[in-house]
Amino acid sequence: MADEIPGYNYGAREVARSPISDEEFEQLKVGAGFTQEDVRYLRMAGEVLQDQVAEIVNRWRSDIIVHIPHLAKHSRSLDGGPLPDYLARSNRRFEQWILDTCLRPYDRAWLDYQHEIGLRHTTARKNQVDHVSSTAEVPFQDVLSFIPVINETMKTYLARKGHSSDEVEKMHQAWSKSMLLQMAIWTKSYASAESTKRV
Amino acid sequence: MADEIPGYNYGAREVARSPISDEEFEQLKVGAGFTQEDVRYLRMAGEVLQDQVAEIVNRWRSDIIVHIPHLAKHSRSLDGGPLPDYLARSNRRFEQWILDTCLRPYDRAWLDYQHEIGLRHTTARKNQVDHVSSTAEVPFQDVLSFIPVINETMKTYLARKGHSSDEVEKMHQAWSKSMLLQMAIWTKSYASAESTKRV
Repeated sequence: MADEIPGYNYGAREVARSPISDEEFEQLKVGAGFTQEDVRYLRMAGEVLQDQVAEIVNRWRSDIIVHIPHLAKHSRSLDGGPLPDYLARSNRRFEQWILDTCLRPYDRAWLDYQHEIGLRHTTARKNQVDHVSSTAEVPFQDVLSFIPVINETMKTYLARKGHSSDEVEKMHQAWSKSMLLQMAIWTKSYASAESTKRV
Repeated sequence: MADEIPGYNYGAREVARSPISDEEFEQLKVGAGFTQEDVRYLRMAGEVLQDQVAEIVNRWRSDIIVHIPHLAKHSRSLDGGPLPDYLARSNRRFEQWILDTCLRPYDRAWLDYQHEIGLRHTTARKNQVDHVSSTAEVPFQDVLSFIPVINETMKTYLARKGHSSDEVEKMHQAWSKSMLLQMAIWTKSYASAESTKRV
């Protein structure tokens, strides 16, 4: 299924390489208290979320972001008009990202792909894979400020398959840790984009 | 009490001014879904935490960070030796920051002071207020990766005063939102420090 997602090329040769070294990546995990238990609870979360990803992304995109102009504009044309294909394509990747967050091993391929996704929110690579004309960049502060909304919504969906409240809590904690790990990785995506701008 | 904390100068004229405009600051709150309900639960959290801040900071610093070399080094001298005064002074500010997060209104003075605290983790202002020689900067990715640990520990302390699990959950959510808001503010602190370096 992932093969058919437009612009999704996890593990491919053309994916950017994160400047974060393997050692720094391990340090990020240690700093976040990210352990094998989190890996197990992310797997559980992946099973719970697998058939809900379209609904989740639809909730973020069509119930929440659409009402927040400074966020919604990044999926629209520069004059604010709709770009339904762009939205549909990036929604498919957004759905797959939930699964990759839960089910993929956090190795170099994963690290590099999170960096690639980061770059696709910056002037370095936004719009390119979909060949659209939209905003040049999603400011990093706006990405960070949206993380609580992602985490909060997620809890509802994690609780839908009859797991104990302790299990839901642990899946949610593992998810939330991953969000901050990914934001840590994105600091380098935004820094790369900035340094390219200066050249 | 806050008046006696070395290097703590909330609201003072010499505090840096955040480049984030009032409008952008409102957008960050909207993006994070930060509402008046969160303000109320942060107030409740402030009451719950008020007499626990020394214990909390001690837990972070002496139980957790001390065992993570790439984080611990930022409170030590460049050769890795202890700087007990630096640690003690910054611990006092760390404690006050918990209270400011919970009890201060999120207005321009608060925004500016969070930016100031951000700068004090960068090459622009780290070590200066304490006149110490330590690492030049705490990398932003390491700050971000530590947020899950801050959030997770916090839950224990929020639950200690007999509030219902729903109240604890809501205090914790409000706290977690504030953490991401603050990290969003810090993107500009780190960007300012970078642009100063280039001059």
